[in-house]
Amino acid sequence: MFCKMLVQMICCVIMWIFCVACEAIGGNTGLVGGAVPVCDEIILSMARLNKVLNIDEITGIASCEAACILENFDAKAREKGLVVPIDLGAKSSCHIGGNLSTNAGGLRVLRYGNLHGSVLGVEVVLANGTILDLMSNFKKDNTGYHLKHLFIGSEGTLGIITKLAILCQTVSSSVHVAFVGLNSFDSVLKTFLNAKRYLGEILSACELIDERSLDASVKQYNLKSPIENYPFHMLIETSGSNAIHDSEKLNFFLEHCMNSGDILNGTVTNEVNKIQEIWKLRELIPTALIRDGFCFKYDISLPLRSFYDIVPVLEGHVGKLAKRVCGYGHLGDSNLHLNVSCEEYSRELYERIEPFIYEHTAKLKGSVSAEHGIGFTKKNYLKYSKSSEAITMMREVKKLLDPSGILNPYKVLN
Amino acid sequence: MFCKMLVQMICCVIMWIFCVACEAIGGNTGLVGGAVPVCDEIILSMARLNKVLNIDEITGIASCEAACILENFDAKAREKGLVVPIDLGAKSSCHIGGNLSTNAGGLRVLRYGNLHGSVLGVEVVLANGTILDLMSNFKKDNTGYHLKHLFIGSEGTLGIITKLAILCQTVSSSVHVAFVGLNSFDSVLKTFLNAKRYLGEILSACELIDERSLDASVKQYNLKSPIENYPFHMLIETSGSNAIHDSEKLNFFLEHCMNSGDILNGTVTNEVNKIQEIWKLRELIPTALIRDGFCFKYDISLPLRSFYDIVPVLEGHVGKLAKRVCGYGHLGDSNLHLNVSCEEYSRELYERIEPFIYEHTAKLKGSVSAEHGIGFTKKNYLKYSKSSEAITMMREVKKLLDPSGILNPYKVLN
Repeated sequence: MFCKMLVQMICCVIMWIFCVACEAIGGNTGLVGGAVPVCDEIILSMARLNKVLNIDEITGIASCEAACILENFDAKAREKGLVVPIDLGAKSSCHIGGNLSTNAGGLRVLRYGNLHGSVLGVEVVLANGTILDLMSNFKKDNTGYHLKHLFIGSEGTLGIITKLAILCQTVSSSVHVAFVGLNSFDSVLKTFLNAKRYLGEILSACELIDERSLDASVKQYNLKSPIENYPFHMLIETSGSNAIHDSEKLNFFLEHCMNSGDILNGTVTNEVNKIQEIWKLRELIPTALIRDGFCFKYDISLPLRSFYDIVPVLEGHVGKLAKRVCGYGHLGDSNLHLNVSCEEYSRELYERIEPFIYEHTAKLKGSVSAEHGIGFTKKNYLKYSKSSEAITMMREVKKLLDPSGILNPYKVLN
Repeated sequence: MFCKMLVQMICCVIMWIFCVACEAIGGNTGLVGGAVPVCDEIILSMARLNKVLNIDEITGIASCEAACILENFDAKAREKGLVVPIDLGAKSSCHIGGNLSTNAGGLRVLRYGNLHGSVLGVEVVLANGTILDLMSNFKKDNTGYHLKHLFIGSEGTLGIITKLAILCQTVSSSVHVAFVGLNSFDSVLKTFLNAKRYLGEILSACELIDERSLDASVKQYNLKSPIENYPFHMLIETSGSNAIHDSEKLNFFLEHCMNSGDILNGTVTNEVNKIQEIWKLRELIPTALIRDGFCFKYDISLPLRSFYDIVPVLEGHVGKLAKRVCGYGHLGDSNLHLNVSCEEYSRELYERIEPFIYEHTAKLKGSVSAEHGIGFTKKNYLKYSKSSEAITMMREVKKLLDPSGILNPYKVLN
């Protein structure tokens, strides 16, 4: 009722979507501006809708209001031996409702899948003030159209999520992290394939960090890498229910990859502090790159076989205009974070990068926005990843649900 | 183009959705009639759209045309060390496109999640003949609205799926099955919780079979149960990458549950033949019950804590009109298959069961159709699981996508 009144009272609304992922923090061009008012919007704060409603330890199903801080929700789940199946660098500040609105990805998609798979139900306030109850507490519920997905990833342009139910996973008692150095991207791919083969069900993250990305976080934050710098590094995490079994699997995998010559050097740990130190090398890259001066940030999905090709290609294309062209990200999800840093903003450099990078992505049938959505800044690039028929249908759905265009206006669609 | 022409040529179409799950075979009242022409429909055969398009062993992403037989598609995936993340009793005949159209669940949702999580892209032919390209080969693709989900589970009423991409999982080299007997449903719940705790990431199926369900499959098919009959039985399956580790986990779990007195008796095997024999006890129940004479079949989701209550309640309610009231199904997904058998069809018995069973389900905020959809026969019961606002929105979406109502008419919505 509270929400209904609010929506009915205002005639122009945008959702306050909190940070989507750690890479989204920093306010640079890589941000899509999905939550930024750009003209005459009214900001709707959801902050008081922050209650955890229920956590069922047997089924693993948890429900909460939309403005629960992800970290708080996860902490409550962990008290019952469960883990919320989404993890982001921004978890201490982001709202789970915002995570849904942006279909946030993050670090554990490889293990837990995406939100379309784990969200079981939502409550949504529509543009006309209708409270749409699509809550469900069941993994299997085939009663009519699966409308909830329209609100997952539509960046608040179709409705305002006020409540949700999500399927949590059993918390893993054992976590190991390996950090390894490799000479070629071919070895990276072979190692990923072997990680899937030998680590199977315990593989929970597989991140790529190239030489220049690691150099950025190490130097800008005065960190210490456990191994010297290689052209490529992989952070491979396992999460399982038996530390001895997990350790055996991991050692067997590493031995195999070292014998084959793909992994040149590496370290493994299950100590919490050491794991955190290793994750810092990866998680601090986005902000470290901003410290270079200015950073153009891109978040794309590319076929794994040609995943890294764009980095040297772009380096050649921008030449000396850039300080650093580097690639890192969620290799296990084919999601590359491609960054170009420079001393200060340069229009010339910008025009060398865009639309070049999107044209390259489109040629490979990649996605011009893997995690961060379309927002305000990528509207013109939507056509590189979506067919004209799909964009037409998006417009029709928008018109159906928000005919006056009051929900997060100026975003996603032109 | 082939599809576009077909659709443009016909003015009234229904999709030929093949069997959704093994429980759907048998042509009884439990079927929702989603693929059955009831009036003046034209049947569209998809059978020639049966090519596997691509299977990428590194990313695990596979694409195919809609009428690929699930078993054939899975066999191709297994050649590359992958498994298609859906498994049904009907896999040797069902089309994967039909699986998507009905959001089929089946035996491995517990492990692999639902199709909304694993399907990455679809190609759909709309009612107006437009070919809507929503194909994507990426786990992360946040470019605009996630429209594909409108076609997953809408039973062919919004569009005709012609192509799809799906994320496959690494095939498990080790499979174990335990078949155990228990005295109470309370012990069943405790055992499920312990299975999640101790088997964690290797748990791949958790099925419940009550005394009368087991009696049906054993007697009607002359099978031999490895243990005597108990009030409840559970079939617990693990799938992992290391047989020794899996066996250790399973033995530890079983020892714990036997010491606590929850599991009274049981057997464990990793021999393929024995595993198949045990699965037959579960998979042949639906058809065994039809051999009783006639069987009213229901497929509902209920909160686990009160999951089985409906069975004795319904038994009391129908009294001697029924030969057998029994419950079995996917406990791990809160999905109960509730069956009432009798010598021959009885209207009196039918009227005792419906809408009683749906009212009970609605009181517990359950789902009146867990796996099998709404189809033709459950249209009047949709209101028990969906709010009026949700049904209104379903109508609006149907009107938007199929204004003349030519796609699978008379189904899902009145």
